[in-house]
Amino acid sequence: MAKLIDGKTIAKDIRTQIKKEIEELKQKYSTFKPHLSIIQVGEREDSTVYVRQKERAAKEAGIEFTLHKKADSITENELLTSIRELNDNPSIHGFLVQLPLPSHINKKKVTETISPKKDVDGFHAINLGNLAKRDCEALFLPCTPKGIIELLKRSDIEIARKNAVVIGRSDIVGFPVFTLLSRNDATVTLCHSKTENLPEIVKTADILIVAIGKAEFVKGDWIKPGAVVIDVGTNAIKDPSKQSGTRWVGDVEFSSASTVASYISPVPGGVGPMTVAMLLQNTLESAKRFLQEARNRNFSLL
Amino acid sequence: MAKLIDGKTIAKDIRTQIKKEIEELKQKYSTFKPHLSIIQVGEREDSTVYVRQKERAAKEAGIEFTLHKKADSITENELLTSIRELNDNPSIHGFLVQLPLPSHINKKKVTETISPKKDVDGFHAINLGNLAKRDCEALFLPCTPKGIIELLKRSDIEIARKNAVVIGRSDIVGFPVFTLLSRNDATVTLCHSKTENLPEIVKTADILIVAIGKAEFVKGDWIKPGAVVIDVGTNAIKDPSKQSGTRWVGDVEFSSASTVASYISPVPGGVGPMTVAMLLQNTLESAKRFLQEARNRNFSLL
Ligand SMILES: NC(=O)C1=CN([C@@H]2O[C@H](COP(=O)(O)OP(=O)(O)OC[C@H]3O[C@@H](n4cnc5c(N)ncnc54)[C@H](OP(=O)(O)O)[C@@H]3O)[C@@H](O)[C@H]2O)C=CC1
Ligand SMILES: NC(=O)C1=CN([C@@H]2O[C@H](COP(=O)(O)OP(=O)(O)OC[C@H]3O[C@@H](n4cnc5c(N)ncnc54)[C@H](OP(=O)(O)O)[C@@H]3O)[C@@H](O)[C@H]2O)C=CC1
Repeated sequence: MAKLIDGKTIAKDIRTQIKKEIEELKQKYSTFKPHLSIIQVGEREDSTVYVRQKERAAKEAGIEFTLHKKADSITENELLTSIRELNDNPSIHGFLVQLPLPSHINKKKVTETISPKKDVDGFHAINLGNLAKRDCEALFLPCTPKGIIELLKRSDIEIARKNAVVIGRSDIVGFPVFTLLSRNDATVTLCHSKTENLPEIVKTADILIVAIGKAEFVKGDWIKPGAVVIDVGTNAIKDPSKQSGTRWVGDVEFSSASTVASYISPVPGGVGPMTVAMLLQNTLESAKRFLQEARNRNFSLL
Repeated sequence: MAKLIDGKTIAKDIRTQIKKEIEELKQKYSTFKPHLSIIQVGEREDSTVYVRQKERAAKEAGIEFTLHKKADSITENELLTSIRELNDNPSIHGFLVQLPLPSHINKKKVTETISPKKDVDGFHAINLGNLAKRDCEALFLPCTPKGIIELLKRSDIEIARKNAVVIGRSDIVGFPVFTLLSRNDATVTLCHSKTENLPEIVKTADILIVAIGKAEFVKGDWIKPGAVVIDVGTNAIKDPSKQSGTRWVGDVEFSSASTVASYISPVPGGVGPMTVAMLLQNTLESAKRFLQEARNRNFSLL
């Protein structure tokens, strides 16, 4: 049986570390007050749940949190103005606009208006571009891909020289995970819905990352014995035995995969909790950069 | 025997098309004067050769060309100032700083100071970032990767649903070629110097792109019969039978590979000529965008 990659516990450890570092920095620098903001447009229930999770986690870690709720009817221009205000507000170190957005708003314009220096989601083209570059000087890495690499590293799983397969090539998960694995010296194959011989390719993977959004799509007998499996998918399926009538499953059939893999991340409790932990980490990194800049400025004024 | 992918002829066709389009646009719009500039720092012989090639090709196509030669001793700040002047000069539609640069100059600062709107080399992080995004809205694609895709398309080689292997993951060739192949729906594996079982992986490729800079490294018996092989490498090796004492070879052993592949690009005369053709194409696209913007401005003034 595969060992579980316990994202819940790993994320908790990281959040404890972050909290400790923030406490220490606050003691050392009276002006140090990391501050995260979220703009939420509309009242989608799932968005409200995610925003609340982020708020709770931020506050627990000692990060100030402000929520800017906007009506569904907000115009694109009004939203861009709110973004610019947060860009210009020196007390805010990072913010994000909770996705998805209503269809009358251009997502790309929103992403690209956020200052790359406060882009804690890591979705700005300049941050994605720097992520892809050899020396990887992105100010922020996108949270879910960063969390996946962290899961592997904290489980002592070697990435360099391994064959990895990533299924899914989205801008926010699959593609940046591919990039990070390649930059960590894995040999990586990127698969998607047009891939012809998927089970055969999956069989070559020492490390398999699945992020497609299809319940229990990858079967245990596709997987190379001893492979490491990270399941990003989060799919609700019917389950009459639950009070809610549904339960969460990943993109990998856990029952069969866990008998073949050496390590596997469960759903829920695998990648999910890491995303929030990485958002806190990005916010802390940003606050530290702003502190350093302020200190450099004061120093040069002396 | 493999069919030759004749980059020289394909590039010539493209340059003829570009020339024709420029002539037509000049006739239609008296203000249309596409203009390419290059900043060359120092006197490296290879750089002078490349710059001269670009100059000749630009002029032949009806693109104005200006060369800004700078001494090796130029400071980084002086170079950045020259770049900003070209950014601000409305008669210039595209420019590049010929690489490599002397070691006292930070390449990244140079690349990132060039306006993304004039970045005809396509090396600015924001252009690389947008290239990696699903909707690929990069203003410019880097010339060599763009030329490789063009070679495949003009040879009627299908990319979608094929297995592709790219060897080499540099910022200017390997990585963006990977990205473009993936965005064209190939399933792509990206290999590099830390890849363990390279011949075995190469064997899976319907399309193989090699960009490593190692003379005749990939052998014919690694290649899947019928595969398409694009050889980006440009390596000088000793050849006493030549007057110069050297000749150019690719990263693929042509003699053995050409008996197995269905298509192969030779060195020289394969990818090389495409790079310059794509530079002209990027310059033309940029000049057209500036023309369109000026027309929109005039229109909105009416
Ligand atoms: N914190 C967390 O735990 C997070 C979890 N997720 C979950 O991860 C999953 C993926 O999310 P996201 O990347 O945003 O999804 P997208 O829908 O944006 O992308 C899905 C990708 O999977 C590919 N795909 C779809 N079907 C198949 C198939 N049958 N075979 C191979 N590839 C396929 C698509 O290919 P193509 O490009 O060809 O269309 C696409 O690249 C979802 O379940 C989501 O809920 C996402 C973000 C965070
Ligand atoms: N117009 C044209 O025709 C152009 C031709 N070229 C030519 O293409 C070649 C590559 O150029 P460029 O991308 O700039 O080179 P770089 O030196 O920047 O990158 C070389 C890449 O090849 C990888 N590599 C090196 N040795 C091996 C090996 N033994 N096995 C597998 N991978 C290996 C390296 O891996 P790692 O990352 O692990 O170090 C690296 O990713 C050169 O010959 C260059 O002259 C380049 C640009 C334009």
